[in-house]
Amino acid sequence: MTKPLNIGMIGYGFMGRAHSNGYRKVNNFFPLEHRPVLKAVCARNRDKAQAFADTWGYESIETDWRELLKREDIDAVDICTPNNLHKEVAIAAAEAGKMILCEKPLAMNVKEGEQMVAAVKKAGVRNMVWYNYRRVPAVTLAKQIIDEGRLGRVFHYRAVFLQDWTISADVPQGGAGTWRLDVDAAGSGVTGDLLAHCIDTAIWLNGPITKVTAMTETFVKERKHAESGKVAKVGIDDACAFLAQFKNGALAVFESTRYARGHKALYTFEINGERASISWDLHDLHRLGYFDHRDESKLRGWRSIHVTDSDHPYMGNWWVPGLQIGYEHSFVHQVADFLKSLETGENAQPDFESALETQRVCDAVLKSAASGKWTDVV
Amino acid sequence: MTKPLNIGMIGYGFMGRAHSNGYRKVNNFFPLEHRPVLKAVCARNRDKAQAFADTWGYESIETDWRELLKREDIDAVDICTPNNLHKEVAIAAAEAGKMILCEKPLAMNVKEGEQMVAAVKKAGVRNMVWYNYRRVPAVTLAKQIIDEGRLGRVFHYRAVFLQDWTISADVPQGGAGTWRLDVDAAGSGVTGDLLAHCIDTAIWLNGPITKVTAMTETFVKERKHAESGKVAKVGIDDACAFLAQFKNGALAVFESTRYARGHKALYTFEINGERASISWDLHDLHRLGYFDHRDESKLRGWRSIHVTDSDHPYMGNWWVPGLQIGYEHSFVHQVADFLKSLETGENAQPDFESALETQRVCDAVLKSAASGKWTDVV
Amino acid sequence: MTKPLNIGMIGYGFMGRAHSNGYRKVNNFFPLEHRPVLKAVCARNRDKAQAFADTWGYESIETDWRELLKREDIDAVDICTPNNLHKEVAIAAAEAGKMILCEKPLAMNVKEGEQMVAAVKKAGVRNMVWYNYRRVPAVTLAKQIIDEGRLGRVFHYRAVFLQDWTISADVPQGGAGTWRLDVDAAGSGVTGDLLAHCIDTAIWLNGPITKVTAMTETFVKERKHAESGKVAKVGIDDACAFLAQFKNGALAVFESTRYARGHKALYTFEINGERASISWDLHDLHRLGYFDHRDESKLRGWRSIHVTDSDHPYMGNWWVPGLQIGYEHSFVHQVADFLKSLETGENAQPDFESALETQRVCDAVLKSAASGKWTDVV
Amino acid sequence: MTKPLNIGMIGYGFMGRAHSNGYRKVNNFFPLEHRPVLKAVCARNRDKAQAFADTWGYESIETDWRELLKREDIDAVDICTPNNLHKEVAIAAAEAGKMILCEKPLAMNVKEGEQMVAAVKKAGVRNMVWYNYRRVPAVTLAKQIIDEGRLGRVFHYRAVFLQDWTISADVPQGGAGTWRLDVDAAGSGVTGDLLAHCIDTAIWLNGPITKVTAMTETFVKERKHAESGKVAKVGIDDACAFLAQFKNGALAVFESTRYARGHKALYTFEINGERASISWDLHDLHRLGYFDHRDESKLRGWRSIHVTDSDHPYMGNWWVPGLQIGYEHSFVHQVADFLKSLETGENAQPDFESALETQRVCDAVLKSAASGKWTDVV
Repeated sequence: MTKPLNIGMIGYGFMGRAHSNGYRKVNNFFPLEHRPVLKAVCARNRDKAQAFADTWGYESIETDWRELLKREDIDAVDICTPNNLHKEVAIAAAEAGKMILCEKPLAMNVKEGEQMVAAVKKAGVRNMVWYNYRRVPAVTLAKQIIDEGRLGRVFHYRAVFLQDWTISADVPQGGAGTWRLDVDAAGSGVTGDLLAHCIDTAIWLNGPITKVTAMTETFVKERKHAESGKVAKVGIDDACAFLAQFKNGALAVFESTRYARGHKALYTFEINGERASISWDLHDLHRLGYFDHRDESKLRGWRSIHVTDSDHPYMGNWWVPGLQIGYEHSFVHQVADFLKSLETGENAQPDFESALETQRVCDAVLKSAASGKWTDVV
Repeated sequence: MTKPLNIGMIGYGFMGRAHSNGYRKVNNFFPLEHRPVLKAVCARNRDKAQAFADTWGYESIETDWRELLKREDIDAVDICTPNNLHKEVAIAAAEAGKMILCEKPLAMNVKEGEQMVAAVKKAGVRNMVWYNYRRVPAVTLAKQIIDEGRLGRVFHYRAVFLQDWTISADVPQGGAGTWRLDVDAAGSGVTGDLLAHCIDTAIWLNGPITKVTAMTETFVKERKHAESGKVAKVGIDDACAFLAQFKNGALAVFESTRYARGHKALYTFEINGERASISWDLHDLHRLGYFDHRDESKLRGWRSIHVTDSDHPYMGNWWVPGLQIGYEHSFVHQVADFLKSLETGENAQPDFESALETQRVCDAVLKSAASGKWTDVV
Repeated sequence: MTKPLNIGMIGYGFMGRAHSNGYRKVNNFFPLEHRPVLKAVCARNRDKAQAFADTWGYESIETDWRELLKREDIDAVDICTPNNLHKEVAIAAAEAGKMILCEKPLAMNVKEGEQMVAAVKKAGVRNMVWYNYRRVPAVTLAKQIIDEGRLGRVFHYRAVFLQDWTISADVPQGGAGTWRLDVDAAGSGVTGDLLAHCIDTAIWLNGPITKVTAMTETFVKERKHAESGKVAKVGIDDACAFLAQFKNGALAVFESTRYARGHKALYTFEINGERASISWDLHDLHRLGYFDHRDESKLRGWRSIHVTDSDHPYMGNWWVPGLQIGYEHSFVHQVADFLKSLETGENAQPDFESALETQRVCDAVLKSAASGKWTDVV
Repeated sequence: MTKPLNIGMIGYGFMGRAHSNGYRKVNNFFPLEHRPVLKAVCARNRDKAQAFADTWGYESIETDWRELLKREDIDAVDICTPNNLHKEVAIAAAEAGKMILCEKPLAMNVKEGEQMVAAVKKAGVRNMVWYNYRRVPAVTLAKQIIDEGRLGRVFHYRAVFLQDWTISADVPQGGAGTWRLDVDAAGSGVTGDLLAHCIDTAIWLNGPITKVTAMTETFVKERKHAESGKVAKVGIDDACAFLAQFKNGALAVFESTRYARGHKALYTFEINGERASISWDLHDLHRLGYFDHRDESKLRGWRSIHVTDSDHPYMGNWWVPGLQIGYEHSFVHQVADFLKSLETGENAQPDFESALETQRVCDAVLKSAASGKWTDVV
């Protein structure tokens, strides 16, 4: 018999759906000792909370997250709020002794992040941050390839995360669906929203980033605020690019924007090593590009690995070779790994401490963009 | 409040999982009046049935499908058995007044299929066959494009379904996972298993096929039978290719094999019309190729449409643009459409009668391969 | 010092340009003992012949090919006329003791081809047919891969040659540029023009084809004749598809059309062997697809080989890795191989005898399309 | 009758071949008033000069470029030497009243470039720099698209030029074929060799670059010098990446390296505008990517334009749709445009003055990499 893990979710937006789907599906596909139970969802608006609970099968609702934290029938709190609430909720949850699964980015800035790390350490509660792309099978396979030493010395890392959904000046800032354009709710624009993913993957695959030089731009300077109805200055970065150096000597280029016409969610990365290279693209997430210089000379070429075989990460639990899975499965995998971590005793990664490293790079990037100088990651 | 639709599933293999996942997810993503309830799963082996029920949340099990059909708490029967049981179960289910959702192909041959169609008509029960690929969003979009008259006169249709999983002579025939190689269980090889999908899509998109000329081959002549343990002659077609003519004047080429090294499940089709062409590939199922001759001359090119926008079929119910879904979602969509059909009163397609048309082509193909002659589809 | 080889070209159309370019470039890139000298070009229209001679540097012109054959300063005759003149010119050239380089297809039909083969054998003159695609480096690399035994037993061969330039009913038949639509000049439509290429490559790569079943279609039944100005019945095949069996047991599917909207010259082939598969596409002719099952399981994928390295066929004579060559280079290579054959004494391939094998398949295809029956290649 | 333009070439390496091929082919494909005559090739080594002259049909040789400049039968001088000779030769050629076609980059640095510009202006001689990629038909089409205003406001520009040929520490510096690794001959590494191409295209397509911040790296610190045989410090940049701002407000990211395993000559650029985006890739140079937001919503997708139609730039002079040309044709086009400029009176672009703008960006990039600061392009 599986052991229940009672989940209390705070927030019910896009990420609330993605996580809930993960909780509901995981035991159908992964043999695990534990089983998530959707105990409660919390949102300020009672009707919306109830509608969400009805759709997803949450047993109860709350309208005040502090009440949720008081409930003894909640084992783990899932924080799906806008970024400006992460710190306060997480620290309270830690103090209440709850496990914490927190949406990314960890916090609004390093200072907040450090407080959160301190809180979970002090409380000794399990913690994890939803950098879900680590669990896309092709990305996990990239990690395996690297850990097996196939690349040799790494020379280059490059990543972009390109979108085009905010080109129209009519997109508002603030409110449901567009809070990511409101600096008070989001902390930053593409840096915290999109580059944070790129940075998390990069550190995971290639180690620490030591210094950066960055530029940011806000193409649309004013937007109507969805809640106040007033036109207000836009405080976020619409686009951000930065050069970086890794501790292992590799050079890196990162870029993100929401103004790349034709790209919906083009997160790509490529790593060039002495002996092999790897590339990946979220738009076709089930494929991994791989070039191996040790292949016979005249037959060398980039391989397009269709990562759907049973010996590929996570794929033995799904369908048969050739049948692809999608975006949402990365969350199922992250839930599976979190539940497995309950069996083994180690935090599923990235935990708060690991996510803080990504936060440090984000802060250095924004600082560099403001100062125009190379900035150390500290 | 949603109305329950009590499901009784017969079989628990690959397709049992795919359908069960569809039942469990559909109401999380699609607002519908009805809600599938996983009432019972039926399999001869009690332990396996129970394990499946535990994994997927079926409330009860049966070990004799005739008992399942007697139960008054079952509204709809889902037939996921090997092909050789479709007819018997379906006819009995119809007589028991159950709705029927039957795995493809409809039957072992046209004769069986005709009996099944007669039975559901006589009983007046809802019926549907799981030709799931119609509900891949890119394929549904292809149908929309065609229905809007964008192609003009159609000249060509071509489709392949290429796999490579039976190249090794060590793969057995018969038994769980490999019954598709046993002619007694499957009726035919790639023709009923893979070409049936190609044919269903083709008729849906381009209308009736009138005549065919075919060739088949069995590359590995003998295989051990998984159940008897004895080496026996292989009765299925390992590969099949055929030329065809459509009623609308288009020429067609179809091919399927399980001996195409490097292809796991490469189902592709392409349609060439006077004004536009369409192409699709299951290996990257979220993309549709589209060429429109009416584009400005110097800017014409095949478009790669990433079918993940909210105005694409089914996609408004999932995530955000750029985030792909996978194979399993085609079943969720088929469940959604079946449930919606309960609201509207018309059978969700393809129903048995429609699937019988595909069966007629399959039979003509096998007959042609045996005779070496062009054969009318009758 | 290089030895001159005096060329007399008959015809000055598209192929006249392609061959002339080959003659002019070959010694700039390939170190050879022989050097083509553009001695004379022959065409009925004196002005056009002279203009062509001026553009390409031919030293003289003729307006009667019989006069050209009488000239003692001509070593080799290049036949670039429409197909209906191949036989007569080639036999006369053989009788005149000239080497012959003949455009493909060899002849209007097998009967003519047999006479041509007899003539060159009797005369003992060198002969070659311009099936140029064998000399695209990626295709030549495919041949190397096969000759090295990397594929193992071959199960499948498939090829298409898809164009879209005759969809408009306003395209005339007959005359310069459109004689390929006039059955009297061309002998057949896509079969002799396009499928002949596919068949030549197929036999070269995979051995003899033993039997076929085919269908043809003429979508536009009448077209104005460019020379007479009158609307006349179209006698060619606009489209042709056929199933085939190779002597080595492989199954094959071939298709060609000029009604595939969106494809300009999409000649593709794919070969599936037990251990490896190969694919190629004329639209990106510098790449070869290669899948090797012996690659480590989790890292298997189709390789896209950019065939531009110095150890790739012919490429050491061109630029540096990554810099692609184009269509016209296949003719330069064929000239180079022809000149090299003068050093070694063996005919460059395909010679007339080899091209006759392709003609036999073309005839069987057209016969099968007319009869509706499987037809042996004899 | 065409008018001769007598060419004197200095240098005979890779670029000497590429230019010579351009001179020899241009009149076969482009109707022009002028015709290049290969009058003389100049190289210090008499035997090599003669061998080159024999291969390419140069009428004479010189071993001292100053002698070449004295010859009255030379109209135009083509400078194909290593970069460190560009200035001296060009200024002397200008003083001798010769037209000048100079390999890129224009000079070792801005200071030299300014002297060269002054010299050609003073002498009033025609001048051009071989930034050949402007004449790849797909790139020229990109320029047309932009000039037609299809992109709207431009937000982003990104370009990379990735190679992998110097990863091995055994590649020497200096000497034939590897002088590009010798800072004394080349001036810089990838910046002048590869990024210069990216910058030339970028300015041409998107206007002036105003400021940059850059990083460079030399991965292999010491290499044997091919001429001296001694191991010496490597002075060039093996890799260089920089962020930039365009005058039109667009942000840019540029990167180049010779350590990107798996890429031979991957020059790609992408431009994102408000209404449309464009992408291109040298590895498949006959294709242009194009995304137009004004396409009907559900049918939007990146188009892959096979730039081989007669209404595409330069392509009406070559073969038929679908048949690709290659790298070398960009030089033929540049010769054609240069010859055409003799008819019209304006310099073919880029001339020295235009190429100096690229040099200014290169110098700013290297200065920024050394200082670690944002640097204005002046």
